Amino acid sequence: MTGTPVPFTVDDYTARMRRAARAAGEAGLDGVLIAPGPDLVWLTGYRPPETERLTLLVLRPGEDPALVVPALEAPDAAKAAPMLTLRDWTDGKDPYETAADLLGRADSPVRADSPGHTAGPGRTGRTVRFGVSDNAWAMHLLGLQSRLPEAAYVSLTEALPMLRAVKDAAELERLAAAGAAADAAYEEIRKVRFAGRRETEVAADLDGLLRQSGHSQVDFTIVASGPNGANPHHEAGDRVIERGDMVVLDFGGLKHGYGSDTSRTVHVGEPDAEERRVHDIVRAAQEEGFRAVRPGAACQDVDRAARAVIDEAGYGEYFIHRTGHGIGVTTHEPPYMVEGEERPLVPGMCFSVEPGIYLPGRFGVRIEDIVTVTEDGGRRLNTTAREMAIVD
Amino acid sequence: MTGTPVPFTVDDYTARMRRAARAAGEAGLDGVLIAPGPDLVWLTGYRPPETERLTLLVLRPGEDPALVVPALEAPDAAKAAPMLTLRDWTDGKDPYETAADLLGRADSPVRADSPGHTAGPGRTGRTVRFGVSDNAWAMHLLGLQSRLPEAAYVSLTEALPMLRAVKDAAELERLAAAGAAADAAYEEIRKVRFAGRRETEVAADLDGLLRQSGHSQVDFTIVASGPNGANPHHEAGDRVIERGDMVVLDFGGLKHGYGSDTSRTVHVGEPDAEERRVHDIVRAAQEEGFRAVRPGAACQDVDRAARAVIDEAGYGEYFIHRTGHGIGVTTHEPPYMVEGEERPLVPGMCFSVEPGIYLPGRFGVRIEDIVTVTEDGGRRLNTTAREMAIVD
Repeated sequence: MTGTPVPFTVDDYTARMRRAARAAGEAGLDGVLIAPGPDLVWLTGYRPPETERLTLLVLRPGEDPALVVPALEAPDAAKAAPMLTLRDWTDGKDPYETAADLLGRADSPVRADSPGHTAGPGRTGRTVRFGVSDNAWAMHLLGLQSRLPEAAYVSLTEALPMLRAVKDAAELERLAAAGAAADAAYEEIRKVRFAGRRETEVAADLDGLLRQSGHSQVDFTIVASGPNGANPHHEAGDRVIERGDMVVLDFGGLKHGYGSDTSRTVHVGEPDAEERRVHDIVRAAQEEGFRAVRPGAACQDVDRAARAVIDEAGYGEYFIHRTGHGIGVTTHEPPYMVEGEERPLVPGMCFSVEPGIYLPGRFGVRIEDIVTVTEDGGRRLNTTAREMAIVD
Repeated sequence: MTGTPVPFTVDDYTARMRRAARAAGEAGLDGVLIAPGPDLVWLTGYRPPETERLTLLVLRPGEDPALVVPALEAPDAAKAAPMLTLRDWTDGKDPYETAADLLGRADSPVRADSPGHTAGPGRTGRTVRFGVSDNAWAMHLLGLQSRLPEAAYVSLTEALPMLRAVKDAAELERLAAAGAAADAAYEEIRKVRFAGRRETEVAADLDGLLRQSGHSQVDFTIVASGPNGANPHHEAGDRVIERGDMVVLDFGGLKHGYGSDTSRTVHVGEPDAEERRVHDIVRAAQEEGFRAVRPGAACQDVDRAARAVIDEAGYGEYFIHRTGHGIGVTTHEPPYMVEGEERPLVPGMCFSVEPGIYLPGRFGVRIEDIVTVTEDGGRRLNTTAREMAIVD
């Protein structure tokens, strides 16, 4: 497949952290608190081991980024993210005190509401507000809340939902490469035998194909045959696939740190008239969802466009999930294409368009491409045929 | 290796949930809120896909367990955990309202403080308190806090730290099998070539050996050679192992859902006198830590016993982490063998005893066994030789 992309540099990460701190200030936050996970990877490139010990990146407008880190992780952190000031804490000590020391100074807001205030909780009369990464552990949030009870905390999804949503050129390149790799896996899986094999066997084939095409991590390999297809999140089970089955394939993972996610619905042998009709409706809905993608449109417009096709065909009650989700360093992130999400699409956003129809006890159809917003519309990052493929 | 253990049943899970609800009541909680992750797996056997959508098990003394679940996960949840009452919510709706509806009734405490009170926030004059699983997402906790601001929330580590700490016979059997499987991997890794190969190559060997011995998931394969050994959490890097290196091996994962975690420090060729001495000190410290294990001893006593040996030998400042951590459905959980942890050891608890000495820029030594508390002492679940092995 394509070669290894140029790694992100300390300068790239520093620019992202600066952008995040600025966005936090503009959103009325005194800082953002980033736990290990996708936000931290995106902002710093650092992936600490997953443990219960507190690791927390603190970004505040106008200040250098600081990392609260367990002492025994400090050497790895210093190597992985040399641009960070480390504040380490030792087993047996209270890590929330270390964090509170760092955040206590936050009540000297960068843009003080009242002149001449001195530091100290609440002395400005203004509530100090921090954004917290969505997946920070509740235990850690509770620890911070108990040490800094006068501060307000808000999730990044609420405060800065679009922090990672707009991808730059280097990120787009990775997402396109991940999409092409998933497409290559689809072209190959169409050639394998379906009839007489268990869903789990086809899923194992898909896993292997995704890794062959350069995925370092496989997040899901859904193979949902016959009635299992009517459950949108059925993964793959012991059911033996039969001739005459519709089979939903939905698969993806990470390649060079960025996600892929695509769905196609295939048929084992010739479909009947209704199967063909339902597939046609979903394909038309996916097309209309894609056509709704353009800068300035609301996220919910994409959902509405796809849903309208399915509603008009009389299958509205069988489309039981939102139309799409963002993708980047994870395979599920903002922006969400869902009713009520009124924020506008912006060039560089990347997300799935994946309508489906699920007929309980019978079969399901889903068709999904990752789409990126361009200057004047949308561009698909998955380009395999969306017509129903007939497999053996 | 050993065969597949008998799966846990709905009755097993129901008993665990009842036990947890009762423990919550005894700890003064009105309920516990369990997010996807190890607590949920242990209590219900259900492993939902990792997404941002709210899934939350609610356990309250005297009530049936209920699961707030995204509508599209509901079929899988019903199949995986048929004993739960499902409260599903649909994309675009507010899942925290669904949870709050369920929890709002919590202000009719099972043991009302004042007779004749009626339901309604705060009418009893008593603060409603919920325990929250440590790894619940901060976003979800913030959502709950905003819908039920009058309630108090506390992490399970604080409120019910020992919820999963005491293992029953079926769990012990699984932990012993996982330990034996890790030991088998150690016996094989001693035979491979170390000198001239990268740490990552030996780590890949370890990964394969752990899977061969029945691990379905490998959590870590630390191969820390020469100066890398002085960093307790160095994983495995590009360094080429040389003759004369000390090499810390620390590896584990899950087998049949339960964890393994063991460390041995080997030497490539003959060690010098100081290397031998440091290894002897760590081995003696590990032995003393193990000897301190008995019902009624405090967790910190295990740490103190191991640490005293290293302190007395003059290396105290180079033992930079706690002595151990619990293990069960995860490889890192309470109880922690750390100064300040005064809770008593109880038969059935399982945890690591893993002192180490880390000499910056030079080498490190760590020796680790999983130990379970018996009626009158401790029993090792890792039984490979703790003497320094000489490898090629």
